[in-house]
Amino acid sequence: MNNSIITSRDNVRIKETRKLLQKKYRDNSGSFLIEGFHLLEEAVKSGMEVHQVFIEESRQDRVQDFPNLSIVTREVLKSISDTENPQGVVAEVAKSDDSVIDFAGKLLILENVQDPGNVGSLIRTADAAAFDAVICVGETVDIYSPKVLRSAQGSTFHLPIVQKSDNIYDHVENLLVSTLSRDSVDYRTVKLEHFSLVMGNEGAGVSEKAIKSASQLIHIPMLGKAESLNVAVAGGILMFGL
Amino acid sequence: MNNSIITSRDNVRIKETRKLLQKKYRDNSGSFLIEGFHLLEEAVKSGMEVHQVFIEESRQDRVQDFPNLSIVTREVLKSISDTENPQGVVAEVAKSDDSVIDFAGKLLILENVQDPGNVGSLIRTADAAAFDAVICVGETVDIYSPKVLRSAQGSTFHLPIVQKSDNIYDHVENLLVSTLSRDSVDYRTVKLEHFSLVMGNEGAGVSEKAIKSASQLIHIPMLGKAESLNVAVAGGILMFGL
Repeated sequence: MNNSIITSRDNVRIKETRKLLQKKYRDNSGSFLIEGFHLLEEAVKSGMEVHQVFIEESRQDRVQDFPNLSIVTREVLKSISDTENPQGVVAEVAKSDDSVIDFAGKLLILENVQDPGNVGSLIRTADAAAFDAVICVGETVDIYSPKVLRSAQGSTFHLPIVQKSDNIYDHVENLLVSTLSRDSVDYRTVKLEHFSLVMGNEGAGVSEKAIKSASQLIHIPMLGKAESLNVAVAGGILMFGL
Repeated sequence: MNNSIITSRDNVRIKETRKLLQKKYRDNSGSFLIEGFHLLEEAVKSGMEVHQVFIEESRQDRVQDFPNLSIVTREVLKSISDTENPQGVVAEVAKSDDSVIDFAGKLLILENVQDPGNVGSLIRTADAAAFDAVICVGETVDIYSPKVLRSAQGSTFHLPIVQKSDNIYDHVENLLVSTLSRDSVDYRTVKLEHFSLVMGNEGAGVSEKAIKSASQLIHIPMLGKAESLNVAVAGGILMFGL
């Protein structure tokens, strides 16, 4: 273990690491940052490859031996963190290679879902409901952004999550598409073992392509005066209720 | 309609209005601020008492006659708004007097729920699921805070929402308490027409008082590797699934 302390935000490794807060650098490097002891533990437990770990000097006791562990000041840690009050540790982790998906299962497809909290929450719920994979389509927010990782609470490491084009709709059996339209069936009438469930954009809903490709358009009945549900809540009702 | 334009953030009425962004002033005044044309429309449709309306000069065409309508500059509007990009209108609305609740229905009880997005989303879902009322207990975040109002999307005006002490647990029949404990029943086995559902704090869960008062402790089975769900998602699954 290296006992010297990084005290400058301008340290070369810190500057390189900080870039990973931006999507374009994550795309190029194939790695991303996680924050906090809970996420680090989940990443290690799930066999993720941890490139390097930065720990705040006052929290050194909290982390076992990592091959590439650096002690940093609180100010330096803050500079590579997305939060106001970082939880003592930031680590760089390699993205996993989940490009191959078995379509014979329960899949969640996120189409143009924009809010990081919603995407993280949907990943967490897909994990809780034992879905086989999550597929991101279109302009869905980067699953490796700090806010998505935070609200996914470690579920990012529990199931395959991949980026695909909406051409996959042509190759999927039992494509269930969640809509607000009453010209669709109540989800409680659908009885399927295996399916792919499409959840759309917060404002605009699902695409024309999804609607045209659907095996079944489904809706959650609005029993009161609300016009719609939050997409993460709707996804939860459908993943546990279908 | 008053055609003069308020151009100063230091205008007395603007300064008074701005205070309503803080809970203590909302508590004292019995009124709160809403933002955006959608919420204003929902408030009017629901018969809420609108005290005054502030509209950005460029958007005057969007609002019909209100008795107390003021035109303001964008900068002034921003000063009484909680968002970076206010949507052209802010209005002061009187809190409704929902102190009397009929306990013979479906009630959602929010106990110490802290995140404004979660509370707003739970109110929206309770509306969509045709619950009869929402009761806030303990340290649950103020339902009239701008973020809660925003994520409730107008549902705040669709059903009674009241603040009570946890003594109400002693007076409620069929108190269902959502827990993570396996020493509780799977929610899918519960068959009740009328009940009160308690959702607890994001980190600490429900209180000892709730557990002791419960007619039934219930849980959502975690089928994958996630340890828990977001409280708004869990509330959605239970409100639509019970």
